[in-house]
Amino acid sequence: VLSLAGVPDDLGFVHFAWDRAAQRREDAAGLASLAALDDARFLAFCGEVPVLRETGAGLDALFQAADIPLRPAGLEQVFLGLEDGAPRSALLLPPDARPALEATAGLVLMDLRTIGIKRPLPQPIISALGCAKALLGWHMKHRFCAHCGQPTEAICGGWKRLCTACGTEHFPRTDPVVIMLVTDGDRCLLGRSHRFPPGMYSCLAGFLEPGETIEDAVRREVLEEVGVRVGAVRIVANQPWPFPMSLMIGAIAEAQSTAITLDPAEIEDARWFSAADAAAMIDHTHPEGLTAPITMAIAHHIVRGYLAEVAAASG
Amino acid sequence: VLSLAGVPDDLGFVHFAWDRAAQRREDAAGLASLAALDDARFLAFCGEVPVLRETGAGLDALFQAADIPLRPAGLEQVFLGLEDGAPRSALLLPPDARPALEATAGLVLMDLRTIGIKRPLPQPIISALGCAKALLGWHMKHRFCAHCGQPTEAICGGWKRLCTACGTEHFPRTDPVVIMLVTDGDRCLLGRSHRFPPGMYSCLAGFLEPGETIEDAVRREVLEEVGVRVGAVRIVANQPWPFPMSLMIGAIAEAQSTAITLDPAEIEDARWFSAADAAAMIDHTHPEGLTAPITMAIAHHIVRGYLAEVAAASG
Repeated sequence: VLSLAGVPDDLGFVHFAWDRAAQRREDAAGLASLAALDDARFLAFCGEVPVLRETGAGLDALFQAADIPLRPAGLEQVFLGLEDGAPRSALLLPPDARPALEATAGLVLMDLRTIGIKRPLPQPIISALGCAKALLGWHMKHRFCAHCGQPTEAICGGWKRLCTACGTEHFPRTDPVVIMLVTDGDRCLLGRSHRFPPGMYSCLAGFLEPGETIEDAVRREVLEEVGVRVGAVRIVANQPWPFPMSLMIGAIAEAQSTAITLDPAEIEDARWFSAADAAAMIDHTHPEGLTAPITMAIAHHIVRGYLAEVAAASG
Repeated sequence: VLSLAGVPDDLGFVHFAWDRAAQRREDAAGLASLAALDDARFLAFCGEVPVLRETGAGLDALFQAADIPLRPAGLEQVFLGLEDGAPRSALLLPPDARPALEATAGLVLMDLRTIGIKRPLPQPIISALGCAKALLGWHMKHRFCAHCGQPTEAICGGWKRLCTACGTEHFPRTDPVVIMLVTDGDRCLLGRSHRFPPGMYSCLAGFLEPGETIEDAVRREVLEEVGVRVGAVRIVANQPWPFPMSLMIGAIAEAQSTAITLDPAEIEDARWFSAADAAAMIDHTHPEGLTAPITMAIAHHIVRGYLAEVAAASG
């Protein structure tokens, strides 16, 4: 459905454009030299929240080393790669530094969802912030060895943690999530969880489990959440989603049954919507004020791709 | 390429057939009652190694509760689901029990790769062993809280671990891996790592990183390993791979350059092979004795799917 050659401009977090230069990660002295170069720049996070700086022209996410706020309090620093040969890293400032940072003239703390929605920065920088958030978030929650309980230390430019007690190496985690539009001809199934804004409906979604194929995970989640049996599953899109560290795998799934039985713990409501209704929800022109997710989210693009297929089939 | 409706019979670990019955997991008393039923059966692992039992007719992986060897020494028990309503679980026996188990008449310890290759059991049971291995392997390596270092306990039938010190919930981990056949018309690129058996070549592969789309991970890994630039990427297959706990995401990737520059740390050799050569390697009839992976592995099916496309295009 979605073009693999051209990722949609308005899909969030898929536009990372720096050279990860992974072969540089093992060389700690080399990374330190890179970080000291004049053209080195740094993203900064206060816990999970990006720290931006005001420029005359708007907001920027890249800091020069000398301008990083509260630098001595910094925690992990991760090497993200090279932008036209210039080093790019991200630095974690402690969550309790937030009041001091918010009181600093010229700094703006803005959570990454808001950045993704409002887009005060170019998409490649927002994607780099997404990469950094997932990686720094992993560090924040994995400072101890899950194997033996002792403290670990970040190595390889932040792409590993090493337990010096038992020698176990730990790698950043990415959780596969399936997100699917269930279809029945020119009707599609959208649901809402209790935590959605009023009137918003979206694709069903859930974490893939050990021992599952993507197709099995789609079928299980749909059956659990709305009681609908699914046959053919097509993978149509994917997206890194840094809340906190997922890989969204988007699919279109053909219904084999249509009666809806909600799992009340997971789903507040789910309905079959006509293509016309879904199109109005995507465009925010639905007469009842119902909406579907905005363009940052992969769900938007799955629905849009499905609607294009329905339109192509009918005309 | 591969049929989504029909998973290949000979692809490994994709045939899990039990109802996971996830809604039962929260009810500890209910799970205990299920495990005590007469028709409850258990898979058993000694560390990473499945414990099988000899029957008159061959081998079986399912034990009745009373017949589980060394039961008092058991570690985690995980609830895998229901088979026609009958409870199915897996039990972890400590790795150091191996000599005692191997000395027990009627028991056979066989590593899961060997099981996958030799198939002494039906594919759905091998897939259940794969699910159990990934889940039990996660337990073995995650008995402490990565957030605070204190011991954790398995809850929810083994689908979570809880840190009673800091309250953090930990979930089983599945690592997305991209595995891709790079193609240049009717030539395809296969490589070998230093640890492959002599003469074997396979698809390139590597872990997806935070902030990456599947397509970006394919392009980065190919460029890192063999210096070839890749354009369009099509996802054609996927497979849970329990060594130790990956999701293999299989792709066909079109080359935009063809000169090969090996990363000697990762790749011992990589070459462009004609479709005829690749077909002979798949069939184990190559005149130089070169081979491609066996049917258990997704790489086999990606190559086979590509060859079918080449044949269809030329005929």
